[in-house]
Amino acid sequence: MRHRIVIVGGGFGGLAAAKELRDPAVQVTLVDRRNFHLFQPLLYQVATGSLSPGEIASPLRGVLKHHPNTSVMLAEVVNVDLDRRRVILGHQATAARSELPYDSLIVAAGARHSFFGNDRWESFAPGMKTVEDALQIRRRMVMAFEAAELETDPGRRREWLNFVVVGAGPTGVELAGQIAEIARYTLRKNFRRIDPRDASVMLVEAADRVLPPYSPDLSASAKRSLERLGVTMMLATTVVDIDAESVTVRPPEGSAVRIGARTKIWAAGVQASPLARELASATGAELDRAGRVTVQPDLTLPGHPEVFVIGDMNRVSDGRGGVQPWPGVAQPAIQEGRYAAVTALARIDGERSAEPFRYDDKGSLATIGRLSAVADVRGVRFAGAPAWLAWLFVHILFLIGLENWLAVLSRWAISFVSHGRGQLLITGEQAAEHAGRAAATSTPLDAELTSTMARRT
Amino acid sequence: MRHRIVIVGGGFGGLAAAKELRDPAVQVTLVDRRNFHLFQPLLYQVATGSLSPGEIASPLRGVLKHHPNTSVMLAEVVNVDLDRRRVILGHQATAARSELPYDSLIVAAGARHSFFGNDRWESFAPGMKTVEDALQIRRRMVMAFEAAELETDPGRRREWLNFVVVGAGPTGVELAGQIAEIARYTLRKNFRRIDPRDASVMLVEAADRVLPPYSPDLSASAKRSLERLGVTMMLATTVVDIDAESVTVRPPEGSAVRIGARTKIWAAGVQASPLARELASATGAELDRAGRVTVQPDLTLPGHPEVFVIGDMNRVSDGRGGVQPWPGVAQPAIQEGRYAAVTALARIDGERSAEPFRYDDKGSLATIGRLSAVADVRGVRFAGAPAWLAWLFVHILFLIGLENWLAVLSRWAISFVSHGRGQLLITGEQAAEHAGRAAATSTPLDAELTSTMARRT
Repeated sequence: MRHRIVIVGGGFGGLAAAKELRDPAVQVTLVDRRNFHLFQPLLYQVATGSLSPGEIASPLRGVLKHHPNTSVMLAEVVNVDLDRRRVILGHQATAARSELPYDSLIVAAGARHSFFGNDRWESFAPGMKTVEDALQIRRRMVMAFEAAELETDPGRRREWLNFVVVGAGPTGVELAGQIAEIARYTLRKNFRRIDPRDASVMLVEAADRVLPPYSPDLSASAKRSLERLGVTMMLATTVVDIDAESVTVRPPEGSAVRIGARTKIWAAGVQASPLARELASATGAELDRAGRVTVQPDLTLPGHPEVFVIGDMNRVSDGRGGVQPWPGVAQPAIQEGRYAAVTALARIDGERSAEPFRYDDKGSLATIGRLSAVADVRGVRFAGAPAWLAWLFVHILFLIGLENWLAVLSRWAISFVSHGRGQLLITGEQAAEHAGRAAATSTPLDAELTSTMARRT
Repeated sequence: MRHRIVIVGGGFGGLAAAKELRDPAVQVTLVDRRNFHLFQPLLYQVATGSLSPGEIASPLRGVLKHHPNTSVMLAEVVNVDLDRRRVILGHQATAARSELPYDSLIVAAGARHSFFGNDRWESFAPGMKTVEDALQIRRRMVMAFEAAELETDPGRRREWLNFVVVGAGPTGVELAGQIAEIARYTLRKNFRRIDPRDASVMLVEAADRVLPPYSPDLSASAKRSLERLGVTMMLATTVVDIDAESVTVRPPEGSAVRIGARTKIWAAGVQASPLARELASATGAELDRAGRVTVQPDLTLPGHPEVFVIGDMNRVSDGRGGVQPWPGVAQPAIQEGRYAAVTALARIDGERSAEPFRYDDKGSLATIGRLSAVADVRGVRFAGAPAWLAWLFVHILFLIGLENWLAVLSRWAISFVSHGRGQLLITGEQAAEHAGRAAATSTPLDAELTSTMARRT
């Protein structure tokens, strides 16, 4: 029988592993609970209405259709039985449960946002990991301008026009920059009672600079670009509380301040898939605060050279008691996926030892707005239009694999010329959700109307 | 004070009226409960994964931003007070209620699908009017192939591979053709246990031919094209019952037949907005079985020359006791919208009488598949590749106004070359909905798993 390799997760890491494993000697099964790969670095553009979800997603079966040795399985991984070498699956499509045996396993189930123990903040300040998250954020942002247009009380109108982004990593910086551009340019002339330029975008970050993983001069450059767009930076500031109408922050000096803001977005932290915890407790591997399991320098679990844990789920031991500092972005995940695939194949052939995984850091990029970005390519740092062009080039190059590049490029071209954003649609459970959000502060008559509307829409 | 014109609905009719009313002499308010105009003739391409929702939708505020005399209002119309000339609005954004006074009113609230009194069929055979409807249909169709891949019992697998479209008007014909193409070409090599070409697409129609409003020879040509794609036609056949696992039909001869099919799509009938009923009962105007109000030859309500009812909500009196036979498609709605706008403006200037509205029928087009369509352009009937090119040309021409044409065109070009469909993503409330659908036939253990999955996903 052929050697069976199971991959859990079709994100950057899992898909890179699957692509590397197009080898008739092995039988590969890629398990994911979604039927598509998501190009997460552009998800913020779905939230801010530049792109449509389909433009940054590719059905996994389509991507792997020319891999006859590979099956895709739409299922939820319930657990892993390391002793019996089986993955326990739940199937959405038929609501049945099954077991999938493996000889090698690559676990790449990723991470979700984390509210550091304040889970009730989630309903007020959604995070952004899935397509549905991004559409929800879009809905709230657009609806806030609609509500401001209707609101006659100046204080309440201000609450609808205040946007707070928590966390100034790449996603937070990109979101804040985009919302500011929307308010300044895209929505100009769209309203009759409000001027969208009165919107205020605030970016709250616990560290003392934006883009904390980047070099200080890139942080400074990103900060200047954001300020030019009118974003208010609140650095060295922590979030104390969040509710429907406000966020309370503690600045570096002085006491906590309550900011009236209806729209909050959480871009502050992530938590690894719960599978990491299960794998750690089954093997005695360490688990860090973000729920990541510490793996050996060859990315395997201690005592299980057949089980690789890659991407946002792991921290990699440096073999000297510490862990590697690699960031939770696409590049390390892709390289780890390829490494796991190659190493698993080598072990079938009896190769026992493996060179430790090494991350080849090609650089970092973050875009802030039109012709505005920061880049650090193998130590060469630059900003502005050249960085923005580098960003464009790299993203188009990556998207080509997704067969969506022509649609995306044409959309970007039109947006660039027109300052437009064709995708600011409010879709999904909009009426019900938004009505519920507003009803919290409304009179009984209003609440009655709300439920009528929710039913009708 | 300027003359106030209120337009209810931002579909083809309402938007055409608003575009015509860019006149500083009048103050226009366009009310819609959605913030975008939907290019409904291409909605079936969202359901079948060729396009993304944003590619056939345009935010209304953006479309009308260069009309300084026009406001867009995101609201639900609760009722119209014809005596006091006010529209009663419910606002999603703030959950408040308000009244909007008008001097002229153009009501263009459209229609939704109708189940002819069998509303419980809706959960088993969704109709297709909104973006959410189309995404739900996409989800069910893709998930059916996923379930078939997992199912080991041949009878149940057959149920997942049977697709029934009810109604062979343009939408039903287009949907059936597209599903057949997906099964034949798009999903080839996507699965390892099933061959998607085993899928069976059935088109059920109560009339004795497909595309009943078109000429008999076009119907015959469309039927041949569908048969070439492998679609099974069930003509002169009515639907008797629909449940989760089957549809029961009564063929022209013999007794009712139960067809095991998990995926059903309803394209059989529409019902006008409930506003039509309210306007009819307030004015004594006639209401037909499809809930449409009969309007005067100038599209106004009897006794209310200031209130126009246009598009899918009306039937137009021919002034001789009968009604006009115009179909419920975009062209009559657009022309009625323009006519209502022009007539309302003329009446401000004291013009009392108006030429009756006349529909200029430019023709009909329906597409069946790749290079396959039927066309009737001012009496000239043709089919095949020329009709398909005519269809392409007309739709691109229309979409240009929507600023999405470049993205749509590039996507169509890629799909044409590759037979691919980049948009077959399962998004939205997928797990919960689908699990619920499957759980109806599962064991208690499975049901427990289902709820776990729904929570996790």
